[in-house]
Amino acid sequence: MSTARYILHYAPDNASLVIRLALEELRLDYTTQLVDRQNSAQHSPAYRALNPNQLIPVLETPQGPIFETAAILLWLSDTHGHLGPGADDPQRAELLKWLFFLSNTLHPALRMLFYPGAYIGRDVDHVSQLTQMTQSNILRLLGLIDQRWADDRPGILLDLYLGPMMRWLALYPTQSDRTWFDLTAFDAIHAALRNLEQRPSVETAQQAEGLGRDPFTSPRHPNPPEGSAT
Amino acid sequence: MSTARYILHYAPDNASLVIRLALEELRLDYTTQLVDRQNSAQHSPAYRALNPNQLIPVLETPQGPIFETAAILLWLSDTHGHLGPGADDPQRAELLKWLFFLSNTLHPALRMLFYPGAYIGRDVDHVSQLTQMTQSNILRLLGLIDQRWADDRPGILLDLYLGPMMRWLALYPTQSDRTWFDLTAFDAIHAALRNLEQRPSVETAQQAEGLGRDPFTSPRHPNPPEGSAT
Repeated sequence: MSTARYILHYAPDNASLVIRLALEELRLDYTTQLVDRQNSAQHSPAYRALNPNQLIPVLETPQGPIFETAAILLWLSDTHGHLGPGADDPQRAELLKWLFFLSNTLHPALRMLFYPGAYIGRDVDHVSQLTQMTQSNILRLLGLIDQRWADDRPGILLDLYLGPMMRWLALYPTQSDRTWFDLTAFDAIHAALRNLEQRPSVETAQQAEGLGRDPFTSPRHPNPPEGSAT
Repeated sequence: MSTARYILHYAPDNASLVIRLALEELRLDYTTQLVDRQNSAQHSPAYRALNPNQLIPVLETPQGPIFETAAILLWLSDTHGHLGPGADDPQRAELLKWLFFLSNTLHPALRMLFYPGAYIGRDVDHVSQLTQMTQSNILRLLGLIDQRWADDRPGILLDLYLGPMMRWLALYPTQSDRTWFDLTAFDAIHAALRNLEQRPSVETAQQAEGLGRDPFTSPRHPNPPEGSAT
């Protein structure tokens, strides 16, 4: 039995990376438990008991297992109070509206890009059309984010979520044409992620998940010590 | 100039309905401002200054305009403290994980069903395929929610969001076959919405937006005193 306060169910370079960064930023006592994607462990009865929607991550906490990346992120920040403005802060509205936007608009668009079959099936023309339109939508969303990111954000929390998403856009799905995506076209996001890469939490996550240097602005495919990203 | 504390930018039977219900539950001082969808007012420069993503609702607050339905809902609950557990409550994790799930999984699936052209274009076969798969996905998600809803929820907040979404599934898109959706197949959700319909906030919203009786369990197309739903 682990005596750590938190257990992060993770796979390398999955959305669990966002939570690992948050746990590191907050210097919390946690252990990790690999979800073996090669054997579809996220669909096992044991994992479904933690998250009925079968997605990674789950964080086990004294309040029970939490799923949904943004929910865990906000809960950790509010419970330990360092990643962004708390409920009584005048910057709270600004935090929440962009956190939900990242979570319910940008992140679902990434899922459509990475797993088109779950939305449109396997027909090549259908997948191609969905992919092209999703890429256009994502570029529009990144334009909105870039405009906002030209000003300071309330806390590091939003960047912890955005950084990994920008990484995934540059890497996944594997073996697809990704010339459509160029992070440097988004000056403010690019600058924010260069700053993020200077933080010790990122160095720790790089090593734990085999991400390599500059994991957000110059990402390479991970070489993790255990498990697999897909 | 309004002297109300809050201004809700709304269109009848849009996601702003969720926020109207919350404002009524909290008995807050607010006024509404119609977003004229027939003239695409949500795409006007004035509205884009409030929400660059051009979606309804926006709530103007002393902390500035807030967009994203779930962000507004959580901010109102935390600021005025009646709709669900606050940041220090042991039920907070349970609230957040299901709120984000409704916001980033169920709600985006509804958007795909209502506005397939924004995701896949106009080809009839493409739209048909996306629609069928989205319907299947939604039924799976509702199954997960129904299982959870068989137990008590932490506060009324989640039901205020789920109720309107169930209404929209029964009504929109207009002129489509909706035999695929039957609310009574989901016992726990149905029971929760029957209870929700007993609340005075729902009666007030019914009248303000012309929703008619039993707006969640037996919805009819709205007959609003101003504006239009689509």
